[in-house]
Amino acid sequence: MRETAHTRTDGRLIVGAAAVARKAGEPLVMEEVVVAPPSSHEVRIKIICTSLCYSDITFWKMKDPPGYFPRILGHEAYGVVESVGENVADLTEGDTVIPIFLPDCGECTDCRSKKSNLCTKLPFKVSPWTHRDETSRFTDLNGDTVYHFLYVSSFSEYTVVDIAHLTKVDPAIPPNRACLLSCGVSTGVGAAWRTANVEAGSSVAIFGLGAIGLAVAEGARLCGATRIIGVDVNPDKFEIGKKFGVTDFVNSKECGNKTVSQVIIEMTDGGADYCFECVGLSSLVREAYDSCRKGWGKTVVLGVDKPGSQLNFSSFEVLHHGKTLSGSLFGGLKPKSDVPILLKRYMDKELRLDEFVTHEVRFEDINKAFDLLLGGKSLRCVIWMDNCLKFL
Amino acid sequence: MRETAHTRTDGRLIVGAAAVARKAGEPLVMEEVVVAPPSSHEVRIKIICTSLCYSDITFWKMKDPPGYFPRILGHEAYGVVESVGENVADLTEGDTVIPIFLPDCGECTDCRSKKSNLCTKLPFKVSPWTHRDETSRFTDLNGDTVYHFLYVSSFSEYTVVDIAHLTKVDPAIPPNRACLLSCGVSTGVGAAWRTANVEAGSSVAIFGLGAIGLAVAEGARLCGATRIIGVDVNPDKFEIGKKFGVTDFVNSKECGNKTVSQVIIEMTDGGADYCFECVGLSSLVREAYDSCRKGWGKTVVLGVDKPGSQLNFSSFEVLHHGKTLSGSLFGGLKPKSDVPILLKRYMDKELRLDEFVTHEVRFEDINKAFDLLLGGKSLRCVIWMDNCLKFL
Repeated sequence: MRETAHTRTDGRLIVGAAAVARKAGEPLVMEEVVVAPPSSHEVRIKIICTSLCYSDITFWKMKDPPGYFPRILGHEAYGVVESVGENVADLTEGDTVIPIFLPDCGECTDCRSKKSNLCTKLPFKVSPWTHRDETSRFTDLNGDTVYHFLYVSSFSEYTVVDIAHLTKVDPAIPPNRACLLSCGVSTGVGAAWRTANVEAGSSVAIFGLGAIGLAVAEGARLCGATRIIGVDVNPDKFEIGKKFGVTDFVNSKECGNKTVSQVIIEMTDGGADYCFECVGLSSLVREAYDSCRKGWGKTVVLGVDKPGSQLNFSSFEVLHHGKTLSGSLFGGLKPKSDVPILLKRYMDKELRLDEFVTHEVRFEDINKAFDLLLGGKSLRCVIWMDNCLKFL
Repeated sequence: MRETAHTRTDGRLIVGAAAVARKAGEPLVMEEVVVAPPSSHEVRIKIICTSLCYSDITFWKMKDPPGYFPRILGHEAYGVVESVGENVADLTEGDTVIPIFLPDCGECTDCRSKKSNLCTKLPFKVSPWTHRDETSRFTDLNGDTVYHFLYVSSFSEYTVVDIAHLTKVDPAIPPNRACLLSCGVSTGVGAAWRTANVEAGSSVAIFGLGAIGLAVAEGARLCGATRIIGVDVNPDKFEIGKKFGVTDFVNSKECGNKTVSQVIIEMTDGGADYCFECVGLSSLVREAYDSCRKGWGKTVVLGVDKPGSQLNFSSFEVLHHGKTLSGSLFGGLKPKSDVPILLKRYMDKELRLDEFVTHEVRFEDINKAFDLLLGGKSLRCVIWMDNCLKFL
């Protein structure tokens, strides 16, 4: 059944290169894997490029479930439809797409509502089985199953994705920009735009200036926020943040005998209108909530703390401060309708994406991308498939 | 200095009848108290009627601070301006007013903003000193200080109230209806109208069908909610609830092996669009949050649990469910602009107020009002001042 990748293979198995996570925390192994043809409601995609998001690292480190091995990680990507399964109406061979971990079936109450982006028909879950029949499309050359990741698994020349997880994109958009909208940048920009609905002229505080925090800044800037305060322990982040609209910086290690919230309340004469927690620490959610303005302040949770970690608020505080606490997956964006709007804004030179790409590597060097992100050196490292090196 | 009440007394002391709380949990004592003339920004009011709210009972029971004795409780009322102090521009002798515990200075950022009802200039606090100079306007006949309560102290023929705490009302509105808007009914109706902004056609679940919960139902009904689920341990509340638009009832003691949230999720095919906690139990806030719909559900906290009681949520839940948690004082209403709108809606026969008044008593029988509310017999008992018995 083996055959060379990159040939026309409709309805047949493909053997292609993949970077397989074989053990938690150990370098990915470049090997050939067998990719099944797409089943009903599925599309097989030839990945052009993929970018590394911190969630890949989080699951790569996990020894126990929801960490599963061997697994093909990767969920931010850009690809071309290689073949389609049955019951695929809106995509055809050659279409350019980005896969998105959050489903958008287009049919259920949530997908039809403007208010929700949490599909009911195919609810998002953290699972190694990411197809409707709960089986894998990958096997290694020994015939053993290789697990999927977040409905995408883009660290592979070919992958199979459910149509609910694919957004068609204009082929004029550069692949190494479009792929950023698969997860992190969309989450941050969307959190400011859709979840918080930041008002023009308002003040914003962002806890954690990693890629998601910077994307929140970019979203807030697009919404017309006039004061964007970045909070981080690394002062270098302020220079980076300025590219995305950060106007003020608070080094949370240098607040003296004040808390960060006290500093922000003083800076903003009462508290920021919107606060975003982008690190994943329950204690920082509390600090963000305390930093937002009584009367109308909104705190949005974007980071995930370890399981079981609790946010603590008293009902007295919730009642007396008139503040709102909310969270959202994928920044509240609807994958199929909102992402194309953001990509258009990039092409119209409104949304900044170029500045997120700090590094680009070949697929064979994918472990360098891990080192760069782990070392805090990169925002986004784009990984180009070897058959697409012409783009590098 | 003593003189008979009810005579013209501008700028002078008045001696009038008051029901004084002398000891925690013991019947109020009818006695005469001396009421100082209004200072700057203050108005002295002749109370026409007052109604008993559960907050009066909460503070009446408290042996330790914020319980203070002797004290004149009462904060839902209707009165007539008897005299005005300096720097009072918008009120004059003979004006009909309702006092409201929440300030509305009209000048600060919050009072000028449509988004907040939490005055910054004169911030609401639970204190026995409720005037700008932090002194009392009441002394007993031994010359000892009598404490105020929630900026109002309406269990007295005369009281002195800051102009930030007074809303002028149309004298055509019956006193025993207008007084209801001072606190409880406004809080409930406002929570549905202003805080949650309930959409027409939506589903609502209300935890606790006391006066505030029923007022939430009334507010939700006015907003066009089509399904209003009342949750209570007392099945009699369903019949009462129907008067205010409650369409379904869940007896939280009769859910079998299901939780209340499981029952509500089944009833609403996914969860209620809006949930309101009106009891003051952190565990019930959790149940309300679980009962509201993923994707867009809003949970509003109206009850206050005992100090130190914590709400527990994980950041994972906040992030993954796309729900919002918020609270508001006075239902998010702006006392001087929103309350007149509600009173007009009562006069236009849209807002139901009559049904809240289950009992009316003379001032001398005020302790009966306590017994009725403590025994769960009344929603609102209106207490008429003895010089106003013509209304009874």
